[in-house]
Amino acid sequence: MSIIDQLNEVLESRKKQHPKESYVSSLYAAGTDKILQKIGEEATEVVIAGKEASSDPSAKPALVGEVADLWFHSMVLLCHLDLSANDVLEELNNRFGVGGHDEKAQRS
Amino acid sequence: MSIIDQLNEVLESRKKQHPKESYVSSLYAAGTDKILQKIGEEATEVVIAGKEASSDPSAKPALVGEVADLWFHSMVLLCHLDLSANDVLEELNNRFGVGGHDEKAQRS
Amino acid sequence: MSIIDQLNEVLESRKKQHPKESYVSSLYAAGTDKILQKIGEEATEVVIAGKEASSDPSAKPALVGEVADLWFHSMVLLCHLDLSANDVLEELNNRFGVGGHDEKAQRS
Amino acid sequence: MSIIDQLNEVLESRKKQHPKESYVSSLYAAGTDKILQKIGEEATEVVIAGKEASSDPSAKPALVGEVADLWFHSMVLLCHLDLSANDVLEELNNRFGVGGHDEKAQRS
Repeated sequence: MSIIDQLNEVLESRKKQHPKESYVSSLYAAGTDKILQKIGEEATEVVIAGKEASSDPSAKPALVGEVADLWFHSMVLLCHLDLSANDVLEELNNRFGVGGHDEKAQRS
Repeated sequence: MSIIDQLNEVLESRKKQHPKESYVSSLYAAGTDKILQKIGEEATEVVIAGKEASSDPSAKPALVGEVADLWFHSMVLLCHLDLSANDVLEELNNRFGVGGHDEKAQRS
Repeated sequence: MSIIDQLNEVLESRKKQHPKESYVSSLYAAGTDKILQKIGEEATEVVIAGKEASSDPSAKPALVGEVADLWFHSMVLLCHLDLSANDVLEELNNRFGVGGHDEKAQRS
Repeated sequence: MSIIDQLNEVLESRKKQHPKESYVSSLYAAGTDKILQKIGEEATEVVIAGKEASSDPSAKPALVGEVADLWFHSMVLLCHLDLSANDVLEELNNRFGVGGHDEKAQRS
């Protein structure tokens, strides 16, 4: 099972937990606005870490960690709204996969 | 091949193109700051679309599209800095995969 | 008249214009989501410029310009929702002005 | 003295304090990245509150509070880098004040 699928299962299972039992279940309980705040925070951290990594290669692992945080919280949002990362991957596949439209055509 | 791997190939191939040949090659040419701006923009669109989708289920497909945009531009950033989505998936696997630490332990 | 008051007058006057007549009236016509997108964009530019200015003092004037853009678009948002910068200044005065509460007490 | 000037004085005075003495002095001690994170967070809160206020007028006071937070943290950033809100107001005056260029001309 891919890590995306494993993570989906983890995120789904957190819906049955009490908010105090895990970080993810506490986010679900706090609601959409709280999850959106986290996405804004993590995106800002990606920008800061990306700026750092562009001038200092030793900061690249930290950037990977920040992107992981951003994707993780995106997945929490999707799951909270009964969507999933697979919907996003399907959308990317429609745009870029074999047989999908090319991004150049999409954007121009 | 997974869509992530296909997209990585597309993003790598764009490095050999002239900036005018595709949207991605124009982002590479514009540089890290421009790509980081796009990530900030797309994250804001996710927040707006997430707020909309939380009160109007018919806005959920639009949210999926915005998260796809955010992940896509994250991958452009990673590729521009000679990293890839696989580094992020590996990081998520270390945190959440079979044998990885639980997110509860990580965060608390 | 302070620049804030002058700018308030400009922003109010733009409400009577056709969207094609000025940048601000085009933002009003596009609606709240568009104005919020601009705020997200400008905040990202402040983060990028602030990161730059922290390591390169010659980038400080650019940072001032980005903060000006952020405050300007905040004022467009306020005006669009029939609020104004004066409401924000009054709020800051309640928090920090002579006789207002100290920020330390507020935050802790 | 205007609230902006009063707040500038407060922010300058915090530079002489120990990080534990006030919220602002703790931000200075934490450094530019931490202050930039706060700006990203507060901008996200403005977007969320603006979205709320656009459909529910009773949320307007909360929006004013979020814009105040955003401007306040922008001023902390400026002060940390030995700039001030007055530099921003001067920039806005150059763009929009009596005798300044019109925003329409600037943007188009």
